[in-house]
Amino acid sequence: MTEVIRSAASLREKVSAWKRSGMLVGVVPTMGALHDGHLSLARAARAQSDRVIVTIFVNPMQFNNPEDLKKYPRDEAHDLALLEAEGVDVLFAPGPEEVYPEGFATKVSVAGVSGPMEGAFRPGHFDGVATVVTKLFGMTQAGRAFFGEKDWQQVQVVERLVRDLNIPIRIIPCPTIREADGLAMSSRNVRLTAEERALAPALHGAMQGAAAAIRGGAPVEAALGEARAAVLAAGFSGVEYLDLRDAETLEVATALDRPARLLAAAVLGEVRLIDNIAV
Amino acid sequence: MTEVIRSAASLREKVSAWKRSGMLVGVVPTMGALHDGHLSLARAARAQSDRVIVTIFVNPMQFNNPEDLKKYPRDEAHDLALLEAEGVDVLFAPGPEEVYPEGFATKVSVAGVSGPMEGAFRPGHFDGVATVVTKLFGMTQAGRAFFGEKDWQQVQVVERLVRDLNIPIRIIPCPTIREADGLAMSSRNVRLTAEERALAPALHGAMQGAAAAIRGGAPVEAALGEARAAVLAAGFSGVEYLDLRDAETLEVATALDRPARLLAAAVLGEVRLIDNIAV
Repeated sequence: MTEVIRSAASLREKVSAWKRSGMLVGVVPTMGALHDGHLSLARAARAQSDRVIVTIFVNPMQFNNPEDLKKYPRDEAHDLALLEAEGVDVLFAPGPEEVYPEGFATKVSVAGVSGPMEGAFRPGHFDGVATVVTKLFGMTQAGRAFFGEKDWQQVQVVERLVRDLNIPIRIIPCPTIREADGLAMSSRNVRLTAEERALAPALHGAMQGAAAAIRGGAPVEAALGEARAAVLAAGFSGVEYLDLRDAETLEVATALDRPARLLAAAVLGEVRLIDNIAV
Repeated sequence: MTEVIRSAASLREKVSAWKRSGMLVGVVPTMGALHDGHLSLARAARAQSDRVIVTIFVNPMQFNNPEDLKKYPRDEAHDLALLEAEGVDVLFAPGPEEVYPEGFATKVSVAGVSGPMEGAFRPGHFDGVATVVTKLFGMTQAGRAFFGEKDWQQVQVVERLVRDLNIPIRIIPCPTIREADGLAMSSRNVRLTAEERALAPALHGAMQGAAAAIRGGAPVEAALGEARAAVLAAGFSGVEYLDLRDAETLEVATALDRPARLLAAAVLGEVRLIDNIAV
C-alpha cells in the first residue's frame, strides 16, 4: 500500500521513524501526471533506497506562464495506482497552502547554470524549482533524490544547489525515457493533438542529426542551424533554442573538447517541448 | 577536548556517527571573538543537546562594509580555550574557500522581516546571513541551533527561513548578555576606545527610558524622539534607527496591542552598536 500524506508534519513523523531505524530514504520529486519516465525514477529509487517517497506538487512558483499552470495535467487517482504498482511507500501530495503558507518569504536562487535556455525563456522558473526542491529535501530528509535527465538543466541547477547549500542528499540523474518513435516522455505530451503528436518526434530526430554531424566534424553552428530549420520545416511554430552546451556548466560549446550536450526547446501547437541528448 | 574541524566532509563524518547513535546535535553559529554572550549560548546548547558544535566563520557574504570585515576581531586560539572550558565537542572553523568554493552560485533571500533596520542600513547583509546559516545547518545537521537575542532581527530572519525551507532544526533564541553597566556584549565592543566604552551604555539607558515611557502611556513617537536625542547628546555620532516594532513581523508598532520590541543601531566613534529590548 502506498500511503498518501498531505502535511509536512505527518511526513516528518513518518520519516523520523524510518531514519531512527537506520533506513535510507529516496525521493522522486514530480508534478504528477506520471508517465513511464517518472516510473523509471521510482524504480531506481526502489532499487537504491530502503523507503521511497514520490512527491506530487504542481509548484506554482516555477510556472512563469499562468496558462501553462492552469492547463498542467492532473490525475492523482491514476498516479496513485501507478505508484502502488511500483511499491512506492509514500505519495506526498501537499496542497499549495501547505508548501507556501501565509507569510512565506524565502527564495533560493542559483546563478550561472540557471541563466540561459529555460532560465532565459521562463523567467523565475529556476528560482521556483530551487526553492521547492530545497523545501522538499527538508520535508523528506531523503538521502537520495532521483531526477530525470529530460530536464538536464534542472539537474545541473539542483546539483549546484545541493553542493552550495551543503544539503545532505545525493542527486541521482536517470536517463530520459522515450516513446518508440523517439519523443521524450513528458506530462505535456497529452496536450498534443493527434496530428501534432505524429510530428513531435521530429525534434529528437533533428537533434540526433545535428549530434551525428557534429561528432563527424561538421562546423557546430552549421549543424545547429540545419537542425533548427528541420524542426520548423516539420511543423513546429518556433525553436526557442537548440544549442550545443558544456554538459555541466551549460556554457555555449563550440567544440567537443569537454563533455557536451545538445539541448532544445520548441513550440508545437500550444505545447512547448524540451529535449536534450549527449553529443 | 574540543576537536577543531575545518572541512565540511570531516564534520559530516563526525556528525553522521553521532546521529547514528541517536544523539541530538546542537549548534552555536558565531563569528568568533567570543564573549560571555556566546558562552551563554554554548552553555544552553550543552544543557539541551547531546553533542555541541560551535562554528566560527567570519562570513564575508554578510559584510556590506569591507572595512568592517577587515577590522572584525579574530582570535581563534583564545576562542578555543574558552570553548574547551565549556565542554564544547567540536569547533568547526572552515576557511572561506571551504564555505564558498569556486563555482559557488546560490543565494538564500528572506523578504519581509529582513527589509527594515539592519536590512536597510546593511544592504545584502541578511542574504549573507540566510545563505551561510542554511549552509551551516546543512553541514552540521544539527537538531537545535542557539542564537543570541542581541541580534533580534537576525533571529526573526532565521526563524522565517527555517520554517519556509522546512529545515529540520529548532531555533532557540537566548537572552542578550550585558556588561554590569548595561552595554550589550558584542565582539565589536573591543574596538571602542576607553572613552567611548565609558559612554556606550547610554544607548541601552536611553532605550530603557523610552520603553518605560511607552509602557507608562507616553506617545510612542515622542518617547522615541527623546531617546534618539539622548543617544546623540551622550556622544554617539549618529542614530541609524531607534524604533518600536512588532516583535515578530518587525513592522513599525505604534501601540502595545501586540508583543513589541525596541530596536536600535547607533554609531560611536568607528563602531556601530546595536541593541534591543522588550517593551
